[in-house]
Amino acid sequence: MRLSIRRGTMLLLCVFGLYIAGKALYKVFMCQSRLARSRKVSVLVKGSNQTRFRYSHLSPMVFVGGVPRSGTTLMRAMLDAHPLIRCGEETRVIPRLLGLRQGWKRHGEERQILEDEGVTQETLDAATIAFLLEIIARHGEPAPMLCNKDPFTLKSSIYLSDIFPNSKFILMLRDGRASVHSMISRRVTIGGFDISSYRDCLTKWSHAIEAMLFQCTLVGPNRCLTIRYESLVLQPRTTMVKVLRFLGVPWHEGVLHHELAIGQPGGVSLSRTERSTDQVIKPVNLEALTRWVGHIPADVLEDMENIAPMLSRLGYDPGANPPDYGQPDPEVINNTEKVLRGEFKLPANLKRPSHESMSKASRPRG
Amino acid sequence: MRLSIRRGTMLLLCVFGLYIAGKALYKVFMCQSRLARSRKVSVLVKGSNQTRFRYSHLSPMVFVGGVPRSGTTLMRAMLDAHPLIRCGEETRVIPRLLGLRQGWKRHGEERQILEDEGVTQETLDAATIAFLLEIIARHGEPAPMLCNKDPFTLKSSIYLSDIFPNSKFILMLRDGRASVHSMISRRVTIGGFDISSYRDCLTKWSHAIEAMLFQCTLVGPNRCLTIRYESLVLQPRTTMVKVLRFLGVPWHEGVLHHELAIGQPGGVSLSRTERSTDQVIKPVNLEALTRWVGHIPADVLEDMENIAPMLSRLGYDPGANPPDYGQPDPEVINNTEKVLRGEFKLPANLKRPSHESMSKASRPRG
Repeated sequence: MRLSIRRGTMLLLCVFGLYIAGKALYKVFMCQSRLARSRKVSVLVKGSNQTRFRYSHLSPMVFVGGVPRSGTTLMRAMLDAHPLIRCGEETRVIPRLLGLRQGWKRHGEERQILEDEGVTQETLDAATIAFLLEIIARHGEPAPMLCNKDPFTLKSSIYLSDIFPNSKFILMLRDGRASVHSMISRRVTIGGFDISSYRDCLTKWSHAIEAMLFQCTLVGPNRCLTIRYESLVLQPRTTMVKVLRFLGVPWHEGVLHHELAIGQPGGVSLSRTERSTDQVIKPVNLEALTRWVGHIPADVLEDMENIAPMLSRLGYDPGANPPDYGQPDPEVINNTEKVLRGEFKLPANLKRPSHESMSKASRPRG
Repeated sequence: MRLSIRRGTMLLLCVFGLYIAGKALYKVFMCQSRLARSRKVSVLVKGSNQTRFRYSHLSPMVFVGGVPRSGTTLMRAMLDAHPLIRCGEETRVIPRLLGLRQGWKRHGEERQILEDEGVTQETLDAATIAFLLEIIARHGEPAPMLCNKDPFTLKSSIYLSDIFPNSKFILMLRDGRASVHSMISRRVTIGGFDISSYRDCLTKWSHAIEAMLFQCTLVGPNRCLTIRYESLVLQPRTTMVKVLRFLGVPWHEGVLHHELAIGQPGGVSLSRTERSTDQVIKPVNLEALTRWVGHIPADVLEDMENIAPMLSRLGYDPGANPPDYGQPDPEVINNTEKVLRGEFKLPANLKRPSHESMSKASRPRG
């Protein structure tokens, strides 16, 4: 009799124990799935090595930009050489969507109509986040830190910093005379820039960089870093140390040899249509630093101060042709000698297919 | 001694039982979350009654469209009056995103560049789906069947039917002379239409409806249904029976009295800026059916066959002013008398605020 009582209590204890364990695990499961549901837009991407990455508007992200021909491709290639970061080619579609969005946001009229139509700014933001995430996440191999380089996205830094709270921004600065000479000599058509005129391009350059710098300043130094193209090519090590520290990723020697990572899995993927491809296949070098000197019409040189007021504001002496950009590191001099010896040729798979497609590539990007 | 052995076995059983229970529940949790992960873009919306709806590209969806001033608002209002369907006001942003997407899809040049940049058509579709889902799902109260009405979206029926495999399309047809008279007399500016000229508007109407009808035909009769505005107002019951059967939703008497659902929870939400609002607050009536007669210049009337070839293709006799649109149901005659007695006034909250905002509302939609 006493025995069966003991057995009874034991059985009761078992049942009770099972009940408690079940309840606990059920709670875990519920909370997990509620977590998943409450999550805003998120994108899942499977890497070639089958690892899965999930990205949301809270994921860390880098936006690299600036006026075209200011070293944005070099910067993103050096970041692409870091195992934890993936940038990839220009998407071209992101600036256009941001253009639409800014239109709906800015213009009081249109904004009022949309509110009347029941399309709130929150809804538009959710839709924009969803679109941008899909593009950026699926644009290449997934990586712990995603990066996007479409030069003009930095016109929207304030908005992007708002919808992606953990994003950071790298604004490339360069002597406008060099950027403009590059546009004109390489016939890189950019929306709004008349590449037959140094005067017009330098004016537009000044306006564009002023707008981007304004946004960068408002986003603040913790989230927007300005990098000079000149420092990047003269002192790549110190510059990239600064960049990676800003991004909060560990140092990786590979970023100083991006040319070795081209076409490598998880390395640097290049586009046949982008105009910088034949340059970034080479190691960091000084080839392009002062190539502009001697190409700018005299009347434009005389009037430089007024045509491009941002030159002096950025510390580029508008009267000096060229100004002193600083001292190069030894390895850069060494790289430049190799480049001048013509040691780096464009691989066939990166050659721009036909003259026709060259005309395509040079369609407006702005 | 025998007792303690029994106790021991009991304890072992308990531990074993707990282990099994734990493992089972863990499996349930894992499979659930894997399910969630494998899901493509999806949007979760919470209704005012706290019910949660999750939408994906596989959700059933209705797109209502046609040339503006063809009864698209009346149709969506009648569908809004159905408890299982929510359309809501025009979003205005969806046609613009579709415009961008079509550009990237159609033009071989741009398409080739995007492929070179590593932005595949699949990526662009995923991004477009994500954007459209966010807008459509968050545009109003969630419902089992979502609906969108932006007249010109039906220019993209083929593409939409492809990215939303369970979507259906309702293309509104109307005597172009009536649509055009409505645009011109109510000064509804539409992208590309010169509302100072009957000839121009009738030409554009003919082109637009031809393009939409072409897309509708390719999508096929199981997924795209054409509805005449004239049938909708003359025989609302038989027409809506046909529509709801096509959509696969049960009949609901409320769709014949959309005016009673205006402003009701889960009912019809109207916009202050849309030009049809002052009309759809009234029950289905014949007011607008033949209002165009006597307003079209003689030279345009004579040349009607050539200006708007789609008239005869759609069965609207271009020589008859007006043609015989058919016999009205008794309740419609009754409604029309009430309307003519002026029994339906625009509520203050739906009045268009100021002349200024009227100019806003009449900005191009195409």
